[in-house]
Order: sequence, then structure tokens, then C-alpha cells
Amino acid sequence: MNKTLKISPLAPDKFPDMPPIEGVRLAVISAGIRYSGRADLMLAELNHGTAAAGVFTLSKTASAPVEWCRRALKGGLASALLVNSGNANAFNGIKGAQAVERTVKAVADLFPCRPSTVFTASTGVIGEPLADEKITASLGALKEKLGIGGWEDAARAIMTTDTYPKGATASADIGGVAVTINAIAKGSGMIAPDMATMLGFVFTDAAIPAGVLQELLAATADKSFNCITVDSDTSTSDTLMLFATGQAEHGEITSVSDPALDDFKAKLEALLIGLAQQVVRDGEGATKFITITITGAEDDGAARRIGLAVANSPLVKTAVAGGDANWGRIVMAVGKAGEAAERDKLAISIGGVAVAAEGAAVAGYDETPVAEHMSGDAIDIAVDVGVGNGRATVWTCDLTHGYIEINADYRT
Amino acid sequence: MNKTLKISPLAPDKFPDMPPIEGVRLAVISAGIRYSGRADLMLAELNHGTAAAGVFTLSKTASAPVEWCRRALKGGLASALLVNSGNANAFNGIKGAQAVERTVKAVADLFPCRPSTVFTASTGVIGEPLADEKITASLGALKEKLGIGGWEDAARAIMTTDTYPKGATASADIGGVAVTINAIAKGSGMIAPDMATMLGFVFTDAAIPAGVLQELLAATADKSFNCITVDSDTSTSDTLMLFATGQAEHGEITSVSDPALDDFKAKLEALLIGLAQQVVRDGEGATKFITITITGAEDDGAARRIGLAVANSPLVKTAVAGGDANWGRIVMAVGKAGEAAERDKLAISIGGVAVAAEGAAVAGYDETPVAEHMSGDAIDIAVDVGVGNGRATVWTCDLTHGYIEINADYRT
Repeated sequence: MNKTLKISPLAPDKFPDMPPIEGVRLAVISAGIRYSGRADLMLAELNHGTAAAGVFTLSKTASAPVEWCRRALKGGLASALLVNSGNANAFNGIKGAQAVERTVKAVADLFPCRPSTVFTASTGVIGEPLADEKITASLGALKEKLGIGGWEDAARAIMTTDTYPKGATASADIGGVAVTINAIAKGSGMIAPDMATMLGFVFTDAAIPAGVLQELLAATADKSFNCITVDSDTSTSDTLMLFATGQAEHGEITSVSDPALDDFKAKLEALLIGLAQQVVRDGEGATKFITITITGAEDDGAARRIGLAVANSPLVKTAVAGGDANWGRIVMAVGKAGEAAERDKLAISIGGVAVAAEGAAVAGYDETPVAEHMSGDAIDIAVDVGVGNGRATVWTCDLTHGYIEINADYRT
Repeated sequence: MNKTLKISPLAPDKFPDMPPIEGVRLAVISAGIRYSGRADLMLAELNHGTAAAGVFTLSKTASAPVEWCRRALKGGLASALLVNSGNANAFNGIKGAQAVERTVKAVADLFPCRPSTVFTASTGVIGEPLADEKITASLGALKEKLGIGGWEDAARAIMTTDTYPKGATASADIGGVAVTINAIAKGSGMIAPDMATMLGFVFTDAAIPAGVLQELLAATADKSFNCITVDSDTSTSDTLMLFATGQAEHGEITSVSDPALDDFKAKLEALLIGLAQQVVRDGEGATKFITITITGAEDDGAARRIGLAVANSPLVKTAVAGGDANWGRIVMAVGKAGEAAERDKLAISIGGVAVAAEGAAVAGYDETPVAEHMSGDAIDIAVDVGVGNGRATVWTCDLTHGYIEINADYRT
């Protein structure tokens, strides 16, 4: 479990420089939950009145922390976020829920604040009781360490099988006032080996009420984290939260359609897409980053579902791994998505070169540039399904021996 | 493409002895469509009045032969079945449909019979024009070879990446009269490498009208071929047909609920389950055969969808490959199926040993027999999702380096 994973060849050069965000203080500590010699517990203190939004796994076997967050979110306010790695506190029955309650109460007593303003997430092994006493015993020391920096440390503390920490930052304009958005995330496969999960936490000093923040986050998640896949598997613990401390002094925002939010929306979307792509780039065994653009679908939702069918196809993913421009497998994957597609209008291009059009191979197309493109590590696949105007872009990685090694061989 | 594939370690000992079926004559020939040195074209002549039924791929990009068969099936009668391997005649635009029409007309002229009683299936590469002139040029010689035996030859002629021919036979009683059911099938992955697909052809001398036959086949497919998966990918050409020559002299059948059909139904179901399992046992790279039984679901359909979610999970399949009783991944896969499941009532057993119950790990369960079971090549996973009375069994294989080798490395 503590074996050193080789950093993904698709990793970014470095962790970004992230400025402080007024109203956010961070700390990490080694609580000894599972790993030795590294921080595994992260605390964020949020100033009074911070608004919260969240989207969570659709799993029917969601973890105890996810259930807690869903309930707590009804209040719309956040005072603290506590995240541990090493144990997912999932599938622990009633004991899991009790561990969450004890932990949240301990955090609430620490500051103090109301328990319903404390959010928590756990990632790691499933079905092992969480040693929450190790967490609560660390809280005092953790609070002492709270400070305005430490974003990379926070990103590292929530890692499980990730091979690098994931962070992103952006500046946006709301009514002439500059606000900052910082985010950290973790994830590399879905639960493997034993662990992984997608967690993402976004913080901004913008002053956006919880209702508007929730609409913003849900819409943006559909263009970012809901458009990525590594292996089609879905964690019981996936969590994406957005906290707005309200410290920026821009005009009041009361509606998600307020034009003053336009730049913030665009920056948030770009930031979350970039962060989601970092998760894909850390996909287990990944050697190639794949961008799949679907156009001509019945609507955007249909386009996304077709894109994910292509992205999740083991035959497409292995073809990309082998550098093989096997567009027949793309046709197959489009067909199995179950969405409307006009077979005899289907057009496919790889690396910008048309390989199929009007439902058949492009006669005598030049394979040289396509083969060249397939030999690189950034693969672009575009499919027009010839039905309507729906479009979507999804991102994934190839399926390699590395994936099998990490997920099948790790006990041997 | 002609490299010799090692026979799957999960293959049956031998091809079964299959008796003749009155009203069915078979022949195979080397038409030189793609392979050299082996038969690649199979013809079955069916006596006058043979009833036909079929179920086909749900792909939105179905092949030209599948579209032909769907239309021809409306007549409910069959005179001939022609199947080629090496080229799927899929995604060839209007030329694909024209190739089917020419081939079918040539077969109809040969006997002669009406074109709408000629059924055809093609399996092999996608997006390459089918050299139907090679097929039509072979028909005369093929007709000369028609005879009452040759089931194994027929099963071999339709193989693509299969490592062994697949056949099954059974005897059933209809109103005191013995009838025979023979079937052949091919399939090992979904389209890889470049080809594969599931084709199944069932023949009986029973006298069952087309409407009843169709109901029988659809219901039985849902318990057999619709319960298997290798890699979640779906071919553009999947075809399962049932032909009843009507030569057996039992009483008239007019309804699928006629009690005289009870034994036939049971034998047909067992035969198709066995044949479907043979396809799974030839799954690309498979080293373990996995049986997944879901109970306690909302209904049987929900149980099947949960079972397939577990069976298609790369994390479950790699865990099995690694001999790891990783039930956390099973919980994850149940959760992602989207069907109702009571997390806190979920129970999982592996090899008959309870590993989780009431939504949590079974405290101190003995891992020894489970590890022993996981080291074998027949893995049983049972999950009760604690909601209702729905149940289903699905079958799959593990995901191994062999799968990656076959599908990613074959061009190198």
C-alpha cells in the first residue's frame, strides 16, 4: 500500500502557485490512519457566513461522510472542512455514521461552531472501521497549525493512489472586483487499489449565496468532473464541494443568471475542467490523454452519454494504448451508447483527419498523419453522429498493462 | 490476423457429438474472404416451411446483415442461412446493403426460394467493403457439399478470434415426441481484434410457428446471451437466430404457454446458457470464469442490471484476475448500477462464504477458504441487495494482461 508509485507520464510540470483566499485557513497533520510518514488529515477553517455547495456520487451505496454532507448542505453554510485519506469510512454500517457524528462534533467543539456547518470527506479502504479516535486526537494540534498557505500540502494530504498532487487557481472579475478561486482534488481510478475516489474542494472569496452557488456548481460539474472517466467505475465517496467565503466586496449576487457572474462562471468552468483533466492524467497506468468530442447528437446530454460510451470502451482504450487508429471500435462504441445516431451520416476524425464520413470509411484516406497522431500522448477523437445539435467533450486515458498491474497484481 | 491464438484455458474438453436434425443440411467452404487455409463461409439449407425467430444487437450502428435479417424476419419463414467470417460488412454505407442484397438474391436463385426467406450474418473487420463476389462465386460449390452432418465444421467456419468452436445439443420432449435442438455460436470479445461479435444459430426439428418461436427465443435470450459480458462492448453485428424445421410429428403448438412446451423451454434455456457460457470461457485473455448471482433486487431486470454492472467493472474483473477477494469493489459496482439497493442490508458472499452482511464486513470472517476459492478458475460471487425478490445470474471472465495484449498489442 505504501509502495512508491511512479509519477504519471502525463502529469503537469509542477503544482501551481496558489495565492491565499481571505477567509480560508488550512492545516495538515499525520494522524496515522493508515499511512506512515505522511500527512493524512486536512482541515480547512472557513470564516463565519461561508456559503457551501456540493455534488456527490450517484452511488446507491454512498459512504457515511457523503450522507452526512448531503444532509448538512441543507443549511447552506460552512465553518470547516475535514478530509482524511487512508480509510473511506464506507460500508461500515451504523458504525460508519457514528464515526462521522463523533468527528464532526469534535470539530464543532473545537472552533466552536454548529455541527451542521462542518463538512467531511474520507477516502481510502472500504469496509474497515475508521479509527476516528486518531482523527479527534489530532484536531487540537491541527487547529494550532492553521494558516493562510499550504495548498500543496493540503492536496498531498488527501492523496491515496494519486501519483501527484492536484491543484488549480484562477482569478475572476465580479462587477469590477477581482476574486480568487483555488481548488484541490485527488483521484486516479475509482477505488483501486482498495482506494481512490474523486474528491474536489473549491474555495473562493466571492460573495455568492448558497442557492446560487449550488446551481453554479451543478452546471459546472456537468461540463467538467461529470465528463471524465478512467475505468467507468464509480466510487462510493465522490465529492465535489465549493465554498464561498464572501470576503470580496463586489455587488450583491442574487441570481445565477446575473451578468456580473459571467466571468466567474467561465473561469470556474475552465478551472474545474483543468482540474478534472489532471485526475484523468493520473489515471492508473495511463500513457495517453484522450479528448473525445461528440457533435450532432440529439442534445448535449445525449452527446455526453455517447462520449462516455466511447471513453469507457475497453476496446477503444486498448486501441489507443496500442497506437491503433481503429475507428471501427469507435463506431461500435457510439452504437452501444443507446442514443440516437444516424449510422449513414456518422463522421469520425482522429487528430483532425477525417477517417470515416457518411457511414463508411473515407476512401483512400492518408493514414500517415493519423498514425503519427496516434503515436503521441494526446489523442483527439471527434465524432459527428448526424442527428441534431447536441455536443459535448469528455476526457479519458488509455487502458494499459499498467492498469492491470496496479489493480490485479498489487497483492502479489 | 492469422496468428494462432492459444486455446483458452477455460475451454470445454471437446466439441459435443451433435446428431442430424431433419430438415437441416450444412456445408462450409473456403471463399478466401480474409483468411487463408480455412473455411470462412457456412450455408444451412432449411426445408420448406421452416419457422424463424431472431434477436439482434441493440446497437444504433447495426450492420447491413442485421438490418436485412430484421426485415426478412417479418415473414417468419426461412429457407437458408448464409454466414461468413473475416468481414462484418458493417459501416460500409449503402454499399454494405447492396452487398447483402446481391448475396441473398444469389442464394435465393440457387435453391430457388424467395429472398425474404434467406438469412445472413457476417463477422470480421468493420468498414471494409465485403467482397461479395467471392461469396456468390462459391455458392454453387457450397450447395454441392450440403449434407446432414458437419456441425463442428460449421462452428469453425464462423469463428474469428475464437480459440475453439462452440456447439451444444439437447433432446427435448414435446407432447411425448422427442425433438432435437442443435446450436453453434462464435464470440470471444466484442469486436476485437478488429473483429469478433456474438453469433448464435439454433436449429430444431420441432414444429413451432414463428410467432411462438420468437417469444420463446426472446425470453430465453434474456436468461442466457443477455446475461453474459466479456468487456461491456457491444458488436454492431450480434445475432441470435432459432430455426424450427417442423419435421417432428408432435401435436400442434399455438401458444408459448402451452404446457407441451415446458420441457422444450427448459432444455432450450439450459442449452443457450451453456452456449453463452462457452463464449465467456473464450473471453479474450480470460483465466477465470465468474458467476455472479444477484438476489433481493427490485425485480429480475434490476437484478440483471446490477449483475452486469458487477460483471463489467474493470476493478472487480482485475481483482478476480489477481485472486483478490476485494469485496469493496463489489459494493462499489452494486452502487454504480443505479438500481435500488439497501446499503445497510447488503450481503456478499464469495465461494459460498459470507464476507459482508447488513452493510458491513463480517467481523473476523475466515479468509482462508475465500482465498482458496479465489485461487481457482471458477469464481462465485453472490450479492443480496436487500430490497425485493428480483434475482438474476450473469457470467463473465476476468480482465488480464492477456486482454491488453490481444487488443492493444496486436499491431506491434
